[in-house]
Amino acid sequence: MRIYGDIQSGNCYKVKLLCSILRIKHEWIHVDILAGDTTATDFLAKNPNGKIPLLELADGRCLGESNAILNYLAAGSELLPSDSFELAKVQQWQFFEQYSHEPFIAVARFIAKYLGLPASRRADYESKQQGGNKALSVMEEQLAKTPYLTGEKLTTADITLYGYTHVAHEGGFELSEYPAVQAWVDSIAAHPQYISMG
Amino acid sequence: MRIYGDIQSGNCYKVKLLCSILRIKHEWIHVDILAGDTTATDFLAKNPNGKIPLLELADGRCLGESNAILNYLAAGSELLPSDSFELAKVQQWQFFEQYSHEPFIAVARFIAKYLGLPASRRADYESKQQGGNKALSVMEEQLAKTPYLTGEKLTTADITLYGYTHVAHEGGFELSEYPAVQAWVDSIAAHPQYISMG
Repeated sequence: MRIYGDIQSGNCYKVKLLCSILRIKHEWIHVDILAGDTTATDFLAKNPNGKIPLLELADGRCLGESNAILNYLAAGSELLPSDSFELAKVQQWQFFEQYSHEPFIAVARFIAKYLGLPASRRADYESKQQGGNKALSVMEEQLAKTPYLTGEKLTTADITLYGYTHVAHEGGFELSEYPAVQAWVDSIAAHPQYISMG
Repeated sequence: MRIYGDIQSGNCYKVKLLCSILRIKHEWIHVDILAGDTTATDFLAKNPNGKIPLLELADGRCLGESNAILNYLAAGSELLPSDSFELAKVQQWQFFEQYSHEPFIAVARFIAKYLGLPASRRADYESKQQGGNKALSVMEEQLAKTPYLTGEKLTTADITLYGYTHVAHEGGFELSEYPAVQAWVDSIAAHPQYISMG
Protein backbone atom coordinates (compact mmCIF):
# COMPACT_ATOMS: atom_id res chain seq x y z
CA MET A 1 0.00 0.00 0.00
CA ARG A 2 1.32 3.40 -1.00
CA ILE A 3 0.26 6.77 0.33
CA TYR A 4 1.13 9.89 -1.63
CA GLY A 5 1.29 12.96 0.56
CA ASP A 6 3.07 15.83 2.25
CA ILE A 7 3.29 15.44 6.01
CA GLN A 8 3.04 19.24 6.47
CA SER A 9 -0.47 19.12 4.99
CA GLY A 10 -3.05 18.43 7.68
CA ASN A 11 -5.07 16.38 5.20
CA CYS A 12 -2.07 14.09 4.63
CA TYR A 13 -0.92 14.04 8.24
CA LYS A 14 -4.35 12.72 9.27
CA VAL A 15 -3.70 9.58 7.25
CA LYS A 16 -0.18 9.19 8.64
CA LEU A 17 -1.49 9.56 12.21
CA LEU A 18 -4.22 6.99 11.64
CA CYS A 19 -1.70 4.53 10.18
CA SER A 20 0.44 4.98 13.28
CA ILE A 21 -2.47 4.46 15.68
CA LEU A 22 -3.69 1.37 13.83
CA ARG A 23 -0.14 0.15 13.00
CA ILE A 24 -0.86 0.00 9.27
CA LYS A 25 2.26 -0.61 7.22
CA HIS A 26 2.60 1.52 4.12
CA GLU A 27 5.05 3.19 1.79
CA TRP A 28 4.92 6.99 2.09
CA ILE A 29 5.70 8.85 -1.12
CA HIS A 30 6.44 12.52 -0.65
CA VAL A 31 4.60 14.83 -3.03
CA ASP A 32 5.52 18.48 -3.45
CA ILE A 33 2.44 20.50 -4.45
CA LEU A 34 4.28 23.77 -4.91
CA ALA A 35 6.73 22.01 -7.29
CA GLY A 36 3.79 20.83 -9.39
CA ASP A 37 3.88 17.12 -8.52
CA THR A 38 0.08 16.90 -8.33
CA THR A 39 -0.37 18.30 -11.85
CA ALA A 40 2.01 15.78 -13.46
CA THR A 41 0.39 13.41 -15.97
CA ASP A 42 1.31 10.29 -13.98
CA PHE A 43 -0.28 11.68 -10.84
CA LEU A 44 -3.43 12.89 -12.60
CA ALA A 45 -3.88 9.36 -13.98
CA LYS A 46 -4.09 8.17 -10.37
CA ASN A 47 -6.20 11.10 -9.13
CA PRO A 48 -7.91 13.24 -11.79
CA ASN A 49 -8.73 15.81 -9.10
CA GLY A 50 -4.98 16.37 -8.61
CA LYS A 51 -4.99 16.38 -4.83
CA ILE A 52 -3.19 14.66 -1.98
CA PRO A 53 -3.37 12.52 0.03
CA LEU A 54 -3.94 9.60 -2.32
CA LEU A 55 -4.03 5.94 -1.35
CA GLU A 56 -2.83 3.38 -3.92
CA LEU A 57 -3.55 -0.26 -3.18
CA ALA A 58 -1.26 -3.12 -4.24
CA ASP A 59 -3.60 -3.91 -7.15
CA GLY A 60 -3.36 -0.34 -8.45
CA ARG A 61 -6.77 0.90 -7.35
CA CYS A 62 -6.63 4.44 -6.00
CA LEU A 63 -8.66 6.31 -3.42
CA GLY A 64 -8.62 10.06 -2.90
CA GLU A 65 -10.00 12.42 -0.23
CA SER A 66 -8.38 12.23 3.18
CA ASN A 67 -11.53 11.41 5.13
CA ALA A 68 -12.60 8.64 2.72
CA ILE A 69 -9.11 7.17 3.12
CA LEU A 70 -9.34 7.34 6.93
CA ASN A 71 -12.66 5.53 7.00
CA TYR A 72 -11.47 2.90 4.53
CA LEU A 73 -8.32 2.16 6.52
CA ALA A 74 -10.21 2.16 9.83
CA ALA A 75 -12.98 -0.21 8.68
CA GLY A 76 -13.43 -2.91 11.29
CA SER A 77 -11.19 -1.16 13.83
CA GLU A 78 -12.05 0.47 17.15
CA LEU A 79 -11.84 3.88 15.41
CA LEU A 80 -15.06 3.38 13.48
CA PRO A 81 -18.37 2.73 15.31
CA SER A 82 -20.56 -0.15 14.17
CA ASP A 83 -23.81 1.56 15.18
CA SER A 84 -25.29 3.25 12.10
CA PHE A 85 -26.19 6.53 13.80
CA GLU A 86 -22.77 6.83 15.45
CA LEU A 87 -21.16 6.09 12.10
CA ALA A 88 -23.28 8.83 10.54
CA LYS A 89 -22.12 11.21 13.27
CA VAL A 90 -18.50 10.43 12.35
CA GLN A 91 -19.30 11.43 8.77
CA GLN A 92 -21.21 14.52 9.91
CA TRP A 93 -18.06 15.81 11.62
CA GLN A 94 -15.91 14.90 8.63
CA PHE A 95 -18.12 16.80 6.17
CA PHE A 96 -18.18 19.68 8.67
CA GLU A 97 -14.38 19.63 8.58
CA GLN A 98 -14.14 19.79 4.80
CA TYR A 99 -16.77 22.51 4.37
CA SER A 100 -16.82 24.60 7.56
CA HIS A 101 -13.35 24.15 9.09
CA GLU A 102 -10.59 23.39 6.54
CA PRO A 103 -11.46 26.22 4.07
CA PHE A 104 -10.94 28.73 6.89
CA ILE A 105 -8.34 27.30 9.27
CA ALA A 106 -6.17 25.40 6.79
CA VAL A 107 -6.31 28.17 4.21
CA ALA A 108 -5.40 30.88 6.77
CA ARG A 109 -2.50 28.69 7.87
CA PHE A 110 -1.39 28.16 4.27
CA ILE A 111 -1.40 31.90 3.57
CA ALA A 112 0.54 32.67 6.76
CA LYS A 113 2.94 29.72 6.97
CA TYR A 114 3.64 28.85 3.34
CA LEU A 115 3.08 32.12 1.54
CA GLY A 116 4.49 34.29 4.34
CA LEU A 117 1.33 36.41 4.63
CA PRO A 118 2.04 38.73 1.70
CA ALA A 119 0.15 42.04 1.59
CA SER A 120 -1.77 40.80 -1.46
CA ARG A 121 -3.31 37.99 0.62
CA ARG A 122 -3.87 39.90 3.87
CA ALA A 123 -7.56 40.56 3.19
CA ASP A 124 -8.08 36.91 2.26
CA TYR A 125 -6.32 35.84 5.47
CA GLU A 126 -8.42 38.19 7.58
CA SER A 127 -11.62 36.96 5.91
CA LYS A 128 -10.87 33.42 7.12
CA GLN A 129 -10.78 34.32 10.81
CA GLN A 130 -14.53 34.55 11.44
CA GLY A 131 -15.35 31.22 9.80
CA GLY A 132 -12.45 29.50 11.53
CA ASN A 133 -13.52 30.78 14.91
CA LYS A 134 -17.08 29.69 14.24
CA ALA A 135 -15.84 26.17 13.45
CA LEU A 136 -13.81 26.09 16.67
CA SER A 137 -16.88 27.28 18.60
CA VAL A 138 -18.98 24.45 17.18
CA MET A 139 -16.28 21.97 18.23
CA GLU A 140 -16.01 23.60 21.68
CA GLU A 141 -19.75 23.19 22.27
CA GLN A 142 -19.53 19.45 21.59
CA LEU A 143 -16.22 18.83 23.36
CA ALA A 144 -17.48 20.58 26.49
CA LYS A 145 -20.06 17.77 26.67
CA THR A 146 -18.14 14.69 25.52
CA PRO A 147 -14.42 13.80 25.49
CA TYR A 148 -14.47 13.05 21.75
CA LEU A 149 -16.50 14.53 18.92
CA THR A 150 -18.95 11.66 18.60
CA GLY A 151 -19.05 10.70 22.28
CA GLU A 152 -16.94 8.63 24.63
CA LYS A 153 -14.57 7.08 22.13
CA LEU A 154 -11.85 8.22 19.76
CA THR A 155 -13.01 7.84 16.15
CA THR A 156 -11.79 8.84 12.70
CA ALA A 157 -13.81 12.04 13.16
CA ASP A 158 -11.32 13.10 15.84
CA ILE A 159 -8.34 12.25 13.62
CA THR A 160 -10.01 14.30 10.86
CA LEU A 161 -10.51 17.42 12.97
CA TYR A 162 -7.22 17.07 14.80
CA GLY A 163 -5.31 17.48 11.52
CA TYR A 164 -5.68 21.23 11.17
CA THR A 165 -7.03 22.11 14.63
CA HIS A 166 -3.80 21.34 16.45
CA VAL A 167 -1.91 23.74 14.16
CA ALA A 168 -4.68 26.36 14.04
CA HIS A 169 -2.38 28.85 15.82
CA GLU A 170 -0.29 28.90 12.63
CA GLY A 171 -3.35 30.41 10.94
CA GLY A 172 -3.85 33.02 13.65
CA PHE A 173 -6.36 31.17 15.85
CA GLU A 174 -6.07 31.11 19.65
CA LEU A 175 -6.89 27.67 21.02
CA SER A 176 -6.66 29.06 24.55
CA GLU A 177 -10.07 30.59 23.86
CA TYR A 178 -11.45 27.08 23.38
CA PRO A 179 -10.50 25.14 26.53
CA ALA A 180 -12.42 21.96 25.68
CA VAL A 181 -10.83 21.90 22.23
CA GLN A 182 -7.40 22.42 23.79
CA ALA A 183 -8.00 19.56 26.26
CA TRP A 184 -9.10 17.30 23.39
CA VAL A 185 -5.99 18.24 21.37
CA ASP A 186 -3.84 17.37 24.39
CA SER A 187 -5.60 14.03 24.89
CA ILE A 188 -4.98 12.98 21.29
CA ALA A 189 -1.34 14.02 21.51
CA ALA A 190 -1.05 11.75 24.57
CA HIS A 191 -2.07 8.65 22.60
CA PRO A 192 0.70 6.03 22.94
CA GLN A 193 0.90 5.63 19.16
CA TYR A 194 0.88 9.38 18.48
CA ILE A 195 3.22 10.83 15.89
CA SER A 196 3.75 14.52 15.34
CA MET A 197 3.33 16.44 12.10
CA GLY A 198 6.94 17.56 11.83
CA MET B 1 -38.61 11.54 11.29
CA ARG B 2 -38.35 15.21 10.47
CA ILE B 3 -36.18 16.85 7.84
CA TYR B 4 -35.52 20.58 8.06
CA GLY B 5 -34.66 22.07 4.68
CA ASP B 6 -35.31 24.28 1.70
CA ILE B 7 -36.05 22.32 -1.46
CA GLN B 8 -34.34 25.00 -3.59
CA SER B 9 -31.05 24.20 -1.86
CA GLY B 10 -29.25 21.38 -3.66
CA ASN B 11 -27.98 20.09 -0.33
CA CYS B 12 -31.56 19.75 0.92
CA TYR B 13 -32.99 18.51 -2.36
CA LYS B 14 -30.52 15.59 -2.33
CA VAL B 15 -32.16 14.30 0.84
CA LYS B 16 -35.67 14.77 -0.56
CA LEU B 17 -34.68 12.90 -3.75
CA LEU B 18 -33.17 10.03 -1.79
CA CYS B 19 -36.31 9.75 0.38
CA SER B 20 -38.39 9.55 -2.78
CA ILE B 21 -36.20 6.86 -4.36
CA LEU B 22 -36.14 4.78 -1.18
CA ARG B 23 -39.76 5.62 -0.25
CA ILE B 24 -38.79 6.93 3.17
CA LYS B 25 -41.67 8.65 4.95
CA HIS B 26 -40.80 11.90 6.65
CA GLU B 27 -42.12 15.28 7.72
CA TRP B 28 -40.53 18.10 5.72
CA ILE B 29 -40.15 21.36 7.61
CA HIS B 30 -39.39 24.34 5.43
CA VAL B 31 -36.54 26.53 6.66
CA ASP B 32 -35.87 29.98 5.24
CA ILE B 33 -32.18 30.81 5.52
CA LEU B 34 -32.50 34.36 4.22
CA ALA B 35 -35.17 35.04 6.88
CA GLY B 36 -32.75 33.88 9.58
CA ASP B 37 -34.40 30.57 10.52
CA THR B 38 -31.05 28.79 10.84
CA THR B 39 -29.72 31.34 13.35
CA ALA B 40 -32.73 31.04 15.69
CA THR B 41 -31.96 29.66 19.16
CA ASP B 42 -34.23 26.64 18.73
CA PHE B 43 -32.57 25.65 15.49
CA LEU B 44 -29.04 26.16 16.82
CA ALA B 45 -29.90 23.83 19.70
CA LYS B 46 -30.56 21.14 17.09
CA ASN B 47 -27.58 22.03 14.87
CA PRO B 48 -24.89 24.26 16.41
CA ASN B 49 -23.39 24.75 12.93
CA GLY B 50 -26.64 26.47 11.86
CA LYS B 51 -27.01 24.73 8.51
CA ILE B 52 -29.63 22.79 6.61
CA PRO B 53 -30.53 20.08 5.84
CA LEU B 54 -30.95 18.62 9.30
CA LEU B 55 -32.43 15.25 10.15
CA GLU B 56 -34.30 14.86 13.45
CA LEU B 57 -35.16 11.35 14.58
CA ALA B 58 -38.28 10.49 16.58
CA ASP B 59 -36.19 10.26 19.76
CA GLY B 60 -34.84 13.78 19.23
CA ARG B 61 -31.34 12.90 18.04
CA CYS B 62 -30.20 15.15 15.21
CA LEU B 63 -27.86 14.62 12.28
CA GLY B 64 -26.46 17.37 10.08
CA GLU B 65 -24.52 17.46 6.80
CA SER B 66 -26.42 16.39 3.70
CA ASN B 67 -24.08 13.59 2.70
CA ALA B 68 -23.96 12.07 6.18
CA ILE B 69 -27.78 12.12 6.16
CA LEU B 70 -27.90 10.42 2.74
CA ASN B 71 -25.60 7.61 3.86
CA TYR B 72 -27.48 7.16 7.12
CA LEU B 73 -30.85 6.91 5.39
CA ALA B 74 -29.46 4.63 2.65
CA ALA B 75 -27.79 2.17 5.05
CA GLY B 76 -28.72 -1.36 4.03
CA SER B 77 -30.32 -0.24 0.75
CA GLU B 78 -29.22 -0.80 -2.84
CA LEU B 79 -27.87 2.77 -2.91
CA LEU B 80 -24.94 1.97 -0.63
CA PRO B 81 -22.37 -0.70 -1.61
CA SER B 82 -21.42 -3.35 0.95
CA ASP B 83 -17.88 -3.75 -0.41
CA SER B 84 -15.53 -1.61 1.69
CA PHE B 85 -13.57 -0.14 -1.22
CA GLU B 86 -16.74 0.73 -3.16
CA LEU B 87 -18.16 2.31 -0.03
CA ALA B 88 -14.97 4.35 0.31
CA LYS B 89 -15.36 5.46 -3.31
CA VAL B 90 -18.87 6.72 -2.52
CA GLN B 91 -17.37 8.81 0.27
CA GLN B 92 -14.51 9.97 -1.96
CA TRP B 93 -17.04 11.48 -4.38
CA GLN B 94 -19.05 12.99 -1.55
CA PHE B 95 -16.03 14.73 -0.04
CA PHE B 96 -15.07 15.86 -3.54
CA GLU B 97 -18.52 17.37 -3.82
CA GLN B 98 -18.31 19.33 -0.60
CA TYR B 99 -14.79 20.63 -1.21
CA SER B 100 -14.23 20.81 -4.96
CA HIS B 101 -17.73 21.15 -6.46
CA GLU B 102 -20.26 22.82 -4.15
CA PRO B 103 -18.09 25.84 -3.18
CA PHE B 104 -17.86 26.76 -6.87
CA ILE B 105 -21.03 25.57 -8.58
CA ALA B 106 -23.52 26.07 -5.76
CA VAL B 107 -22.04 29.40 -4.74
CA ALA B 108 -22.02 30.72 -8.33
CA ARG B 109 -25.66 29.66 -8.60
CA PHE B 110 -26.51 31.34 -5.31
CA ILE B 111 -24.93 34.61 -6.41
CA ALA B 112 -26.71 34.53 -9.78
CA LYS B 113 -30.09 33.08 -8.86
CA TYR B 114 -30.71 34.33 -5.33
CA LEU B 115 -28.71 37.53 -5.17
CA GLY B 116 -29.40 38.53 -8.80
CA LEU B 117 -25.71 38.80 -9.71
CA PRO B 118 -25.12 42.27 -8.24
CA ALA B 119 -22.06 44.19 -9.48
CA SER B 120 -20.50 43.84 -6.02
CA ARG B 121 -20.43 40.05 -6.40
CA ARG B 122 -19.50 39.84 -10.08
CA ALA B 123 -15.78 39.18 -9.41
CA ASP B 124 -16.68 36.51 -6.85
CA TYR B 125 -19.06 34.89 -9.37
CA GLU B 126 -16.40 34.94 -12.10
CA SER B 127 -13.83 33.45 -9.73
CA LYS B 128 -16.06 30.39 -9.25
CA GLN B 129 -16.15 29.44 -12.93
CA GLN B 130 -12.72 27.84 -13.20
CA GLY B 131 -13.15 25.62 -10.14
CA GLY B 132 -16.65 24.64 -11.19
CA ASN B 133 -15.51 23.66 -14.64
CA LYS B 134 -12.62 21.68 -13.19
CA ALA B 135 -15.08 19.75 -11.00
CA LEU B 136 -17.31 19.01 -14.00
CA SER B 137 -14.23 17.83 -15.94
CA VAL B 138 -13.31 15.41 -13.17
CA MET B 139 -16.86 14.04 -13.24
CA GLU B 140 -16.80 13.86 -17.06
CA GLU B 141 -13.63 11.76 -17.01
CA GLN B 142 -15.27 9.20 -14.71
CA LEU B 143 -18.70 9.21 -16.34
CA ALA B 144 -17.17 8.66 -19.78
CA LYS B 145 -15.98 5.31 -18.37
CA THR B 146 -18.84 4.18 -16.13
CA PRO B 147 -22.57 4.97 -16.08
CA TYR B 148 -22.44 6.08 -12.44
CA LEU B 149 -19.71 7.74 -10.40
CA THR B 150 -18.60 4.63 -8.56
CA GLY B 151 -19.28 2.13 -11.36
CA GLU B 152 -22.27 0.27 -12.70
CA LYS B 153 -24.81 1.13 -9.99
CA LEU B 154 -26.58 4.21 -8.72
CA THR B 155 -25.30 5.12 -5.24
CA THR B 156 -25.66 7.97 -2.79
CA ALA B 157 -22.58 9.49 -4.46
CA ASP B 158 -24.70 10.10 -7.56
CA ILE B 159 -27.51 11.65 -5.51
CA THR B 160 -24.89 13.86 -3.85
CA LEU B 161 -23.41 15.17 -7.09
CA TYR B 162 -26.73 15.38 -8.89
CA GLY B 163 -27.98 17.96 -6.38
CA TYR B 164 -26.09 20.95 -7.76
CA THR B 165 -24.85 19.53 -11.07
CA HIS B 166 -28.30 19.37 -12.65
CA VAL B 167 -28.82 23.08 -11.94
CA ALA B 168 -25.23 24.11 -12.74
CA HIS B 169 -26.50 26.18 -15.69
CA GLU B 170 -28.06 28.52 -13.12
CA GLY B 171 -24.50 29.26 -12.01
CA GLY B 172 -23.27 29.88 -15.55
CA PHE B 173 -21.95 26.40 -16.38
CA GLU B 174 -22.64 24.73 -19.73
CA LEU B 175 -23.41 21.05 -19.27
CA SER B 176 -23.43 20.61 -23.07
CA GLU B 177 -19.62 20.79 -22.81
CA TYR B 178 -19.73 17.67 -20.62
CA PRO B 179 -21.70 15.06 -22.61
CA ALA B 180 -21.15 12.16 -20.21
CA VAL B 181 -22.26 14.33 -17.28
CA GLN B 182 -25.34 15.41 -19.25
CA ALA B 183 -26.20 11.77 -20.06
CA TRP B 184 -25.80 10.85 -16.38
CA VAL B 185 -28.05 13.77 -15.36
CA ASP B 186 -30.67 12.55 -17.83
CA SER B 187 -30.46 8.97 -16.56
CA ILE B 188 -31.06 10.04 -12.97
CA ALA B 189 -33.99 12.23 -14.01
CA ALA B 190 -35.48 9.15 -15.69
CA HIS B 191 -35.60 7.17 -12.43
CA PRO B 192 -39.21 6.06 -11.82
CA GLN B 193 -39.17 7.56 -8.32
CA TYR B 194 -37.57 10.83 -9.43
CA ILE B 195 -38.86 14.10 -8.04
CA SER B 196 -37.78 17.49 -9.31
CA MET B 197 -36.31 20.33 -7.31
CA GLY B 198 -39.12 22.78 -7.97
